[in-house]
Amino acid sequence: MSEEVPAAKKRIGVLISGSGTNLQAILDASAKGDLDAQVAVVISDNEDAYGLERARKAGVPAVWVDRSAYESAHAYNDAIRDVLLEHDVDLVAMAGYMRLLGTEVLLVFRDRVLNIHPALLPAFPGALGIRDAFEYGVKVTGVTVHLADEKFDSGPIIAQEAVEVAEDDTLETLEAKMHQVEHRLYPKALQWMVEGRVSLRGRRTRIKL
Amino acid sequence: MSEEVPAAKKRIGVLISGSGTNLQAILDASAKGDLDAQVAVVISDNEDAYGLERARKAGVPAVWVDRSAYESAHAYNDAIRDVLLEHDVDLVAMAGYMRLLGTEVLLVFRDRVLNIHPALLPAFPGALGIRDAFEYGVKVTGVTVHLADEKFDSGPIIAQEAVEVAEDDTLETLEAKMHQVEHRLYPKALQWMVEGRVSLRGRRTRIKL
Repeated sequence: MSEEVPAAKKRIGVLISGSGTNLQAILDASAKGDLDAQVAVVISDNEDAYGLERARKAGVPAVWVDRSAYESAHAYNDAIRDVLLEHDVDLVAMAGYMRLLGTEVLLVFRDRVLNIHPALLPAFPGALGIRDAFEYGVKVTGVTVHLADEKFDSGPIIAQEAVEVAEDDTLETLEAKMHQVEHRLYPKALQWMVEGRVSLRGRRTRIKL
Repeated sequence: MSEEVPAAKKRIGVLISGSGTNLQAILDASAKGDLDAQVAVVISDNEDAYGLERARKAGVPAVWVDRSAYESAHAYNDAIRDVLLEHDVDLVAMAGYMRLLGTEVLLVFRDRVLNIHPALLPAFPGALGIRDAFEYGVKVTGVTVHLADEKFDSGPIIAQEAVEVAEDDTLETLEAKMHQVEHRLYPKALQWMVEGRVSLRGRRTRIKL
């Protein structure tokens, strides 16, 4: 009798600060098998982040790393890195994590840290991508999944999807459309990473189709 | 017997500096009736611009305004304005015109001067919108038609259309796709202006559908 041992699933660490709707999309995609990876740990800098509760409900370790317990951003980022390493993480997904990730993490997980931004970067970086685009008056905005680097919203782009701003859109209806696209695009881009289909040429990425 | 007198067609002045492919798209749309307006004059700051030849072929007055014949940008822009006024222009379309249009023109044709840019503004302003987006590594770029103001690439947006950067796109294939969209979008936006469907709310535009 021979036994086939399936390859171990890739393990994703998710960093959050808030409600974790993109985390939920990743958990759901993993549960459904659309994302062939498991969320190994969810880390929050905010003790009250509802995303921690989402993690617990999904049976995933939920870790609050208290920034105020560390003397420096350096020590804090060392702690984040250590939690990721303890949970044997292959990929890191930032999902509404409102801090810059330190080189302490980025060096260990080089080109394996993803982030999502609710605008077509490099347009409308920052914390209010949807609102800023709406108020600027664009007719097309969208969602970006990119590799994280040492600056906010700046790394190589893995996936983008356009979202039209309709004439009757309010900020609220636009936000709803944007979140739908985010929740579809992020698991898709993570799956490309899991399948090893993403390669880098300078700051451009190539996705093997 | 009664006779219906058709309303006079709106008259468009087109400003160019180069080959004038967007001018050609406007001329073609006007000839086909997709754009219910006529090109009344084509003005170039460049004597050798092929767009002037396109104008002549279409039976449209082609005027070279020689910047070096004027002492100041002010006097030069006065001359541009005077040519537009002589030809009884209702709307102005900048189509590859490589200078900033002066307030001398903008004040007279307030909110009636359009420009086109080969990127999803505010991303990738400047003279090399397609190349800059390609080299940045975006997966989605696009075309913007906007009202011109005193700064480059900055006025209220009338129309935008997304263009995907495919994995096998080169700069050349992307340029070809972009130009196709430009040549469709610019006449469409001009037609909206002709029909009086564009209104302003701050820097946002509303298009009456």
